[in-house]
Amino acid sequence: MAVYTEVSDQELATFLRGYDIGHAVSFKGIAEGVENSNYLLRTDRGSFILTLYEKRVAPEDLPYFLGLMDHLAGEGLACPTPIHGSDGEALRELCGRPAAIISFLEGMWPRRIEPPHCALLGEAMAKMHLAGNSFAMTRENDLSVAGWRSLFEDVRARAHEIEDGLEEIIEKELARLEESWPVDLPAGVIHADLFPDNVFFLDGALSGLIDFYFACNDFLAYDLAICLNAWCFEEDGSFNVTKGRRLLAGYDGVRPLEKSEIAALPLLARGGAMRFLLTRLYDWLHHPEGAMVNPKNPKEYLGKLRFHQQVKNAGAYGLDGIS
Amino acid sequence: MAVYTEVSDQELATFLRGYDIGHAVSFKGIAEGVENSNYLLRTDRGSFILTLYEKRVAPEDLPYFLGLMDHLAGEGLACPTPIHGSDGEALRELCGRPAAIISFLEGMWPRRIEPPHCALLGEAMAKMHLAGNSFAMTRENDLSVAGWRSLFEDVRARAHEIEDGLEEIIEKELARLEESWPVDLPAGVIHADLFPDNVFFLDGALSGLIDFYFACNDFLAYDLAICLNAWCFEEDGSFNVTKGRRLLAGYDGVRPLEKSEIAALPLLARGGAMRFLLTRLYDWLHHPEGAMVNPKNPKEYLGKLRFHQQVKNAGAYGLDGIS
Repeated sequence: MAVYTEVSDQELATFLRGYDIGHAVSFKGIAEGVENSNYLLRTDRGSFILTLYEKRVAPEDLPYFLGLMDHLAGEGLACPTPIHGSDGEALRELCGRPAAIISFLEGMWPRRIEPPHCALLGEAMAKMHLAGNSFAMTRENDLSVAGWRSLFEDVRARAHEIEDGLEEIIEKELARLEESWPVDLPAGVIHADLFPDNVFFLDGALSGLIDFYFACNDFLAYDLAICLNAWCFEEDGSFNVTKGRRLLAGYDGVRPLEKSEIAALPLLARGGAMRFLLTRLYDWLHHPEGAMVNPKNPKEYLGKLRFHQQVKNAGAYGLDGIS
Repeated sequence: MAVYTEVSDQELATFLRGYDIGHAVSFKGIAEGVENSNYLLRTDRGSFILTLYEKRVAPEDLPYFLGLMDHLAGEGLACPTPIHGSDGEALRELCGRPAAIISFLEGMWPRRIEPPHCALLGEAMAKMHLAGNSFAMTRENDLSVAGWRSLFEDVRARAHEIEDGLEEIIEKELARLEESWPVDLPAGVIHADLFPDNVFFLDGALSGLIDFYFACNDFLAYDLAICLNAWCFEEDGSFNVTKGRRLLAGYDGVRPLEKSEIAALPLLARGGAMRFLLTRLYDWLHHPEGAMVNPKNPKEYLGKLRFHQQVKNAGAYGLDGIS
């Protein structure tokens, strides 16, 4: 939950003069999203999200993120679209920060995941992957295997504060991932952060995907691996194979998985667990006293990593019978 | 900024069945209000605020607060109104907490106060005071003079952490306030917390007052004293007499101030400063490490108290020529 930058009514009015969307009738900070400041803006013409990009988003990446949303919406995917100013620009500046107004997407993210959510998520992700094929820009995934070691070096000395022996566990797993990470899987645009709070549902249908600020070019199946971790484990740490099956089948029905992707899934899932274990560890150890954001417990992802380490093949995720 | 209680989509859907306002199409936590959890709820029929009352609001006071909003709206005052359930009840329960749905009020609170805001605020407050005359329920102001000493006892030992000698300053002022506090001023329903974030403006007009969760029965002029403190000081601590004059004249034009109220204003302003000095001191010293809310600096109100201590009469607030 976060609003890091306070926008005054005068600054807002001036900012809106650069658009053709009417004038503000309501403006409220939203207690969601830990990376940016988000406001729900209502004008006399409609509802919008105004986002100020805070320090964790690199300004040079914003044209990729905003361009991708434009592209995906143009391909018919349900997602918010950047509103372009009267001068054609979507990326602008407000209160000294990069800022953009995005269309408002109806729907709610599911607080309790049910198997049908996973099926709809799989379908939507596959559609996004297909729609991304024709997107011209590229952005490297700086949070994939090549980026993990430097994150690890930053936290290793204090990893034992989370759990005894955690430094050694990560060291060993990291070496294994680095030596065996796939090199030739189908690749393209992935969302890379499709957690439940980034997927909206309405009346039993998926109404859209949001928050493309980790999107990048990487193996498509790695996006699936991230979702296996984020959607298919129960609160007690157990893997719900029904949810896994629905997720993978939903995806496979739209974009059939290749044999190489299926074979790589356990390794990709370990990598996905490693990525969130490391970034949560980093956030946990670098959390300033008295900050407004409660960091998430890294241990959740250590448990997921351990599960995937014991998986022999993608059948453990419910993949029997697919492909 | 705060959302203390997470409401699941299932819990929300069940809760909404008790109302006749349609079904949810959007539901976002609002990063405003430090006392309660507030959500912006959109249904297929309109926009609403859903509030879950957290521990700082006494459940037994809620019928007064909600009843007052109903009453004031019925008298034509611009303020949110509680939505009543199909059974007629406005006060309900959600996630184990008292909860209510309130109508959505358009407008934005002013981040930078200009004199015209103060004039409109004065008028609206006077209208609220007049409309409150016919409200049948009463609620004692537990944050007026009778309540300050116990707050002080709770913080006195650590007051020096904020400023050397603060304990003695408060002790002396408190004794003075207790011995000279007025007993026979015009009284009625006051808002008691009309800070800028509780007053909405739209297109240069005041669109409404919100957040009646400190409302109570007390001297009407004490509400004005609170607003002199909250609206008429500049960031550098100086008192802006133009804002004071506009506030008081705006009020007086709707409900003429009595001589006794004008004479009592400096003392009431000292009391208002004491009330927020003490509660901010309390919040500052009881602020848990790592909490999601940043407490406000009590020193701001020590400066305001010192200003009022030097005031000889209400002329210092710009009251010359009124009454």
